[in-house]
Amino acid sequence: MDFDLSEEQRLLVESARAFASHELAPHAADWDRDHHFPVDVIRRAAEQGYLALYIGEEDGGLGLSRLSTSLIFEQLSAGCVATTAFMTIHNMACWMLASFADQALKAVWLPRLISGELLASYCLTEPDAGSDAAHLRTRAKREGGEYVIDGSKCFISGAGSTEVLIVMARTGEDGAKGISCFLVPADAPGVRYGRNELKMGWCAQPTRSISFEGVRIPAGNRIGPEGQGFVYAMKGLDGGRLNIASCSLGAAQAALEQSLRYVEERKQFGKPLAEFQALQFKLADMLTDLTASRQMVRLAAHKLDHKHPEASLYCAMSKRFATDHCFDLCNAALQLHGGYGYLNDYPLERWVRDSRVHQILEGTNEIMRVIVARRLLEQGGMLDQLL
Amino acid sequence: MDFDLSEEQRLLVESARAFASHELAPHAADWDRDHHFPVDVIRRAAEQGYLALYIGEEDGGLGLSRLSTSLIFEQLSAGCVATTAFMTIHNMACWMLASFADQALKAVWLPRLISGELLASYCLTEPDAGSDAAHLRTRAKREGGEYVIDGSKCFISGAGSTEVLIVMARTGEDGAKGISCFLVPADAPGVRYGRNELKMGWCAQPTRSISFEGVRIPAGNRIGPEGQGFVYAMKGLDGGRLNIASCSLGAAQAALEQSLRYVEERKQFGKPLAEFQALQFKLADMLTDLTASRQMVRLAAHKLDHKHPEASLYCAMSKRFATDHCFDLCNAALQLHGGYGYLNDYPLERWVRDSRVHQILEGTNEIMRVIVARRLLEQGGMLDQLL
Amino acid sequence: MDFDLSEEQRLLVESARAFASHELAPHAADWDRDHHFPVDVIRRAAEQGYLALYIGEEDGGLGLSRLSTSLIFEQLSAGCVATTAFMTIHNMACWMLASFADQALKAVWLPRLISGELLASYCLTEPDAGSDAAHLRTRAKREGGEYVIDGSKCFISGAGSTEVLIVMARTGEDGAKGISCFLVPADAPGVRYGRNELKMGWCAQPTRSISFEGVRIPAGNRIGPEGQGFVYAMKGLDGGRLNIASCSLGAAQAALEQSLRYVEERKQFGKPLAEFQALQFKLADMLTDLTASRQMVRLAAHKLDHKHPEASLYCAMSKRFATDHCFDLCNAALQLHGGYGYLNDYPLERWVRDSRVHQILEGTNEIMRVIVARRLLEQGGMLDQLL
Amino acid sequence: MDFDLSEEQRLLVESARAFASHELAPHAADWDRDHHFPVDVIRRAAEQGYLALYIGEEDGGLGLSRLSTSLIFEQLSAGCVATTAFMTIHNMACWMLASFADQALKAVWLPRLISGELLASYCLTEPDAGSDAAHLRTRAKREGGEYVIDGSKCFISGAGSTEVLIVMARTGEDGAKGISCFLVPADAPGVRYGRNELKMGWCAQPTRSISFEGVRIPAGNRIGPEGQGFVYAMKGLDGGRLNIASCSLGAAQAALEQSLRYVEERKQFGKPLAEFQALQFKLADMLTDLTASRQMVRLAAHKLDHKHPEASLYCAMSKRFATDHCFDLCNAALQLHGGYGYLNDYPLERWVRDSRVHQILEGTNEIMRVIVARRLLEQGGMLDQLL
Repeated sequence: MDFDLSEEQRLLVESARAFASHELAPHAADWDRDHHFPVDVIRRAAEQGYLALYIGEEDGGLGLSRLSTSLIFEQLSAGCVATTAFMTIHNMACWMLASFADQALKAVWLPRLISGELLASYCLTEPDAGSDAAHLRTRAKREGGEYVIDGSKCFISGAGSTEVLIVMARTGEDGAKGISCFLVPADAPGVRYGRNELKMGWCAQPTRSISFEGVRIPAGNRIGPEGQGFVYAMKGLDGGRLNIASCSLGAAQAALEQSLRYVEERKQFGKPLAEFQALQFKLADMLTDLTASRQMVRLAAHKLDHKHPEASLYCAMSKRFATDHCFDLCNAALQLHGGYGYLNDYPLERWVRDSRVHQILEGTNEIMRVIVARRLLEQGGMLDQLL
Repeated sequence: MDFDLSEEQRLLVESARAFASHELAPHAADWDRDHHFPVDVIRRAAEQGYLALYIGEEDGGLGLSRLSTSLIFEQLSAGCVATTAFMTIHNMACWMLASFADQALKAVWLPRLISGELLASYCLTEPDAGSDAAHLRTRAKREGGEYVIDGSKCFISGAGSTEVLIVMARTGEDGAKGISCFLVPADAPGVRYGRNELKMGWCAQPTRSISFEGVRIPAGNRIGPEGQGFVYAMKGLDGGRLNIASCSLGAAQAALEQSLRYVEERKQFGKPLAEFQALQFKLADMLTDLTASRQMVRLAAHKLDHKHPEASLYCAMSKRFATDHCFDLCNAALQLHGGYGYLNDYPLERWVRDSRVHQILEGTNEIMRVIVARRLLEQGGMLDQLL
Repeated sequence: MDFDLSEEQRLLVESARAFASHELAPHAADWDRDHHFPVDVIRRAAEQGYLALYIGEEDGGLGLSRLSTSLIFEQLSAGCVATTAFMTIHNMACWMLASFADQALKAVWLPRLISGELLASYCLTEPDAGSDAAHLRTRAKREGGEYVIDGSKCFISGAGSTEVLIVMARTGEDGAKGISCFLVPADAPGVRYGRNELKMGWCAQPTRSISFEGVRIPAGNRIGPEGQGFVYAMKGLDGGRLNIASCSLGAAQAALEQSLRYVEERKQFGKPLAEFQALQFKLADMLTDLTASRQMVRLAAHKLDHKHPEASLYCAMSKRFATDHCFDLCNAALQLHGGYGYLNDYPLERWVRDSRVHQILEGTNEIMRVIVARRLLEQGGMLDQLL
Repeated sequence: MDFDLSEEQRLLVESARAFASHELAPHAADWDRDHHFPVDVIRRAAEQGYLALYIGEEDGGLGLSRLSTSLIFEQLSAGCVATTAFMTIHNMACWMLASFADQALKAVWLPRLISGELLASYCLTEPDAGSDAAHLRTRAKREGGEYVIDGSKCFISGAGSTEVLIVMARTGEDGAKGISCFLVPADAPGVRYGRNELKMGWCAQPTRSISFEGVRIPAGNRIGPEGQGFVYAMKGLDGGRLNIASCSLGAAQAALEQSLRYVEERKQFGKPLAEFQALQFKLADMLTDLTASRQMVRLAAHKLDHKHPEASLYCAMSKRFATDHCFDLCNAALQLHGGYGYLNDYPLERWVRDSRVHQILEGTNEIMRVIVARRLLEQGGMLDQLL
C-alpha cells in the first residue's frame, strides 16, 4: 500500500490549484449571483486538458487515471464548484463517446469536444424516472437510416448552452436492456428547452429540461450497439460518482482553509476565535472528516482504475460518505463564520448551496445505500475481499 | 401540568394559519426570488394585531403571553419565514418601547408602530461585537437636550425600509453598564445605510449596515434611564430567541407537511415513496424532532411568562435545540424530494436557506451553549429546580 | 398549557428521590456486580405504594396519573435503574389485573401483589415473535374448567424469583384476535425456568426463559374475555413505554449530576475540567437533551392520561426519543470521566449498560419508528391535531 | 498511490485470521465472563511472532511495518479484543526496549519478552495525570549504582500478571524534560499491586494500580539517557494509537459479519430482517464507516512508517475517527440483534463493552482533538502537505 501522491500527481495538483486560484475563485461569486455560465473559462480549462482528463491519449485526452482525475477536480472545485461540476459532466460525456462510439462518430465530434469548441450535456434523468433510470421512457425509433427521438429529460446540466447532447433512449423492450445511447446535436429540429431552472446552488451552470419531439438523427449517431445504453450509463455513473464526490472534497477543502483564516483574524470577547476550545474541536473534526472523505474517494478511484470486481460498491460508498461529510463540513464552516457566513460576501453559503446537490445527483445518497446494501447482502463472504 | 392548547389558543392558531395560507404562502417564493419586502402584507398583519402580540392591551397590543405569541409566529412562518421573522423583530422593538419608554415617547411612536404605519428595526449588533454585545462601541454623547450618536451597526433587519430604529449605544463606561437605548428616526440626518446585503436566505427582508455620523436626537428619545440598555437587550433576547425558534418550528412544520404530500404522490420503482421503509423511518424521526422542538419552545415560553428565575436558561436551550433540529428537518425534507427539492419551484430549498440563519441570529447556537453551561456550572444543585 | 409540577407532584418527587438515595443508590453497584435481585427493598418500596402507582385507590393503588407515575419512576431509577425497571413491570402486571380481571381473581391476588408479598412477571415475548407479538404461539387450550398452557416465553424479567406470571397465550385463531391473557402461579406444575441469562446490564434483576408444558390453571384465572389479550398487551405497552422511558430519564439525570460534580473536582493541565470549553458545550447539550426528553415523556403521559386518540403515537415517539438521547447522555458522561468512567467504582458504566436495553425493550426503537410512520402516513391531516 | 494489500500482507492477514478463529474467538466469551487472562494463548501467539511484530529482525522481531502490524491486530481482535489489546501493549513495551535500551539490558530481557516467557506492562498513567502525562509525579532518585522509585501508577494493563514493568518516572525537573524510562522487575521489593479493577469491558486482562515504595533497581535498567522518557512515551503513543484503533477495526469487522449472518437467519413479520429497508440502510452505513475507518488507520500507519513530519497528526486523527465510528458500529450491531444483542450468549454486547475503552485509552478522543487542532492552527498552510 502506498498513500503518497506521485511526483506527477503533485504537479497535476499544483497546476489545477493554480488554475482554480486564477481563473475560477476570483469570479465564482459573480457567476453564482449572475447565473453566468463561464464558457470562455471552460475553454481555457480545455487548454489544460481538463475537458478530457481520463480519455486515452490516442483519442486526444490526457489519459489520466480516475485517481489523478479526482485530484484535479478536487482542486478545481475549490475554485468554483458549479463550473467544475459541469466540467466533470462534459468529461463523462466525452469519455462515453471515446469509449463506445465508432471511429466515424468520434472523428466528427470528439476533437471539438476535447478542445472545448463544443460543450456536451448528458441526458439520462426523466421526470418520472429519477432514481429508476432503467425505466426511462424517451423513445428512439429506427426509421431507415435515422432514429426519431421523442420524450423528455429533466435536470440537464448545461442544457441550452451546449452544442452536443448525449441521450439515453429506449430502442427496445422495457427495462434496462432496451436502452441505447445517442449523440444528438443540441440544435436539431424538435429539440426544445425549458426555462433555466432556479436552483438553490450550481447557479453558474444552467439546468433545463429538454423535450424531444420527432427529433431525427442519423443512425450513425448511435453510440455503440442497440441495447447497451444502460450498461454505459451504469459505467458512466461509477466515474460520475467519483467526480461529484471530488467536487465535494474541493468545496470542503476550501471551506476549511477559509475557516482557518477566519478564526485567526476574528476576535470575540477579546481573543481570536482560534483560542476557543469548542471551535478548535470543531476544526479538528473538520480536518478528520475531510481526510477520511479524501481517502474514500481515492480508494474507490483506485478500485475503478484497477477494475476491481466491487468497484461500483466502492464508488457508491465513497460518493455517499464524501458528499455527506463534506456538506456537513461546509455547513459547519458557515456556522463558524456567524452572520458573515450567511452573507454572500463570503463564499461559505455558496459552498453550502453548491455542495448540497451532490447528495442528490448521480443517484441520491439513499440510492447509494440501496446499492451498497444489495452487494453486501448478496455476498456475505465478500467482506474478505474488501480488506 | 397541562400540555393542551386552550380554546383561545386554538383559535389564535387557526386564524394565524389562515393568514399564513392566504397572505404569505402564495407569495413567499416570489418575495424570496425578487428580494421584495412585503410592507403592504405586514400592514395587513398589523390589522390582526400581529405587530404587537405581547404588548399590553393598555398600550394597544393584544396582551398575549409569550407562549401564545409563539403559537402565532409558528403558524405565520409556515407561510413565509423571512416575513414573519421581520415581524418578530418589529414586535420586540415595540415591546421594548412599550415596556421601558416614558409615556411621552410612547405616545408619539407606539400607536403608529402597532398599526404598521411605521416599521421598526432593532440595532444592537456591531461589526466587531457580534456575540459580545456588552462591548459595543457606538457612542451616544449627551449635548444639552440632545444626544449625538456616532458609530455603526450591521446585520440590521429591515434597515432602509423602516422608519424607526431602536439603537443600543454607549453613554457611559466600558462594558455592559455603560449602554443605553434610544429611538432614532430612520431618516435623521447622519444616518447612512449600506447596500442591501445579499444573503443565503431571508431574502424577503432587507438587511443593511447602518452608520451614524453625528446623528442628533432629542434626549427624550432615550428609552429608560441611562445605563439600562444592556439589561433591556438581554430581556429582549429571551423573547427574541423564542420568536426565532418559533419561526424555525413553522418552517419545519411546513416542510414535514410538504414531505407527507410528496411521498404519497411521487413514485419510484413502481410504488409511492411512502412505502419505502427507510423514508418512513426518516418521516417518523422528523415528526418526533418537531414535536420535541415545539415542547422545548413552549416550555421556555411558559417559564418566561411566569418569570421563572431560570427563564433565560430555558430560552437559550430551546433556541439551540429547536433551530438546530428544525434546520436538520428542513434539510432532510429537501433530500427526500430529490432533485425537485433543489429547485425553487418547491419551497424546500427556501426553508433550508431561511431557517439556516436562525442558528446564528439572536446569539449563535455556540453562544447558547455558553449561556447554558455557565448557568449549569454556577448552580450544581440547580438541577432540582429544572424538573 | 402549564409546565409546572403541582405541589403534590413536587412532594412525590421528593419522597421518591429520598427513597432512591437511601434505599437504592447505596447498593446499586453491589446488586449489579452480584446479580442480586433486592426483593426486600422492593417490598419496602411497596410500603410507599410504588408497586401500584397507577392502580385506582378502590383497588388499593395510589391512583396516580401516568404523568405522576413517570415522575416517581424517574427519581427511583436515578437510584437503581434495574430495580426500578422491574418495579415498572410489576406495576404494569398489577394494572392489567386491576383493569381487566374479574373481582374474584383480583381479590385473590391483587392485594398481595400490591403489598409486595408477591411479585409478578409479564410474559409476552417469545423466541420467534420478538417485535411481532401478534404471532405468538404459546397456546392455552380450554379443557372443562381449566386451561392447559403449552409453549415458551423468553426475556422474562424477574422470572424464577416471582410468584405470579401474567401470560399471553393463544386461545383462538391466528393473529392478534386469538390471544387471551392469564394469571399463572409461578410454581404451577409444568412451568420450567431457564438459567438466569447473563446480560450486558439490568443485572440486579433476573431474566429467564420459561417453558410451559401442560400447565393447568383454573378457567377463572383468565383475565378478561377470550380474545382480548392483544388489546390488553397493546394498552399495557403504551404505559410500559412511558415507564421505561422514565427509567432512562432517571439514569440520565443521575449521570448529568455526577458529571457536574466530576468536572468541578477533577483537574487536568492545572485547571478543573469545568473550565474546558469543549466539555462545557457537552454539558450544555446534555442538559438540553435531558430537558427535551423529559418534556416528551410528560407530554405523552399527559396524552395517555387524557385518552388522546393519538396517545399511542406520543408514547412511541417519547420512548424512542428519550431512550435514545438518554443513552447517549449516559455514554457521553462516561467519556467525560475518562478512564474512571470505565471502572465500576463509578456508576457511569452501569448506567450505560442498564439504559442500553431501553432502546430495545417494549418494542425496539425501530418498531417505534414503524408505529410513528404508520400513524403519520395514515392521517396526512393529523398534523393539525398534534399541535 | 496503491490501496491493495501485498501478497505478503494477504498471507499475514490470513494466518492472523486463522489464529483468531481457532485460538481466540471460541474462548473470548468465557475469558470475559471469568475475568481470565489467557497467558497460555498469548504464549502461543508469541510463537507466531505476534508479541514482537514491529521489532527489527535483528532484535528477534518480525520487523513488520506499522501498516502490516495493524492488519494483524485487526484480525486478532476480531477474535478477542481484550487479549489482542494486551498484546498491543506488550508489543509497544518490547519496541521501547528494543529501540532505546542499551544492548546489555536488551540481552537480558528482550528475548524472553519476545518469546512470551515474560509479559510486560506499560506504566505511564497516574491518578492525577491522566491526559497530562508531562506532569507525572512518580520519582526515580539516583543513589549510587541504583535508582529508587517512589510513586504510583493506575490503569495498568496486565499488572499483577506480568513480569516486567516499563515505567516512566521523574528524574529531573518538572515537566516533560525531567522524565526517564525504566525497566522494573514486577516482583521487585516495594512494588505493590491494587486489586483487579472491575471494568465495563476488557475483562480478559487484569488492570491494577501499582505503588512503588522505595523500589530499587540497577542504574542499568534505565532505558536510554535521563530525560528522554517523555520523548519515548510520545513516540510510543503514535504506535499505540494505531494499535488500539486497529483493535476497534477488528471488533467492528466481527460485528458487521455477525450482523450479516443474523439478518439472513432472523425473521420478523414473516420475512428475514435482511429484507427490511431501514436495516439495509444501516448495514450499508456500517460497511461504509468501517471502510473509512480502515483507510484512516492504514493511512496513518503509512505516514508513521515513512516518518512523515505530520505522522502524529495522522495517528491522532485516525485513532479518534476509527475508535468512535467502530464503537458506534458495534453498538448499532447490538441494536440490530434486539434482545439477543443484550445477552452475552451473543458477542455483540462484549464488543460494545470492549471497544468502548478505546475512545478513552492512549489519550482520550478529546485529547486527540486537542492534538489535531493544535497542529492545524500552528500551520495554516499545512493543509497542502496533507493532500
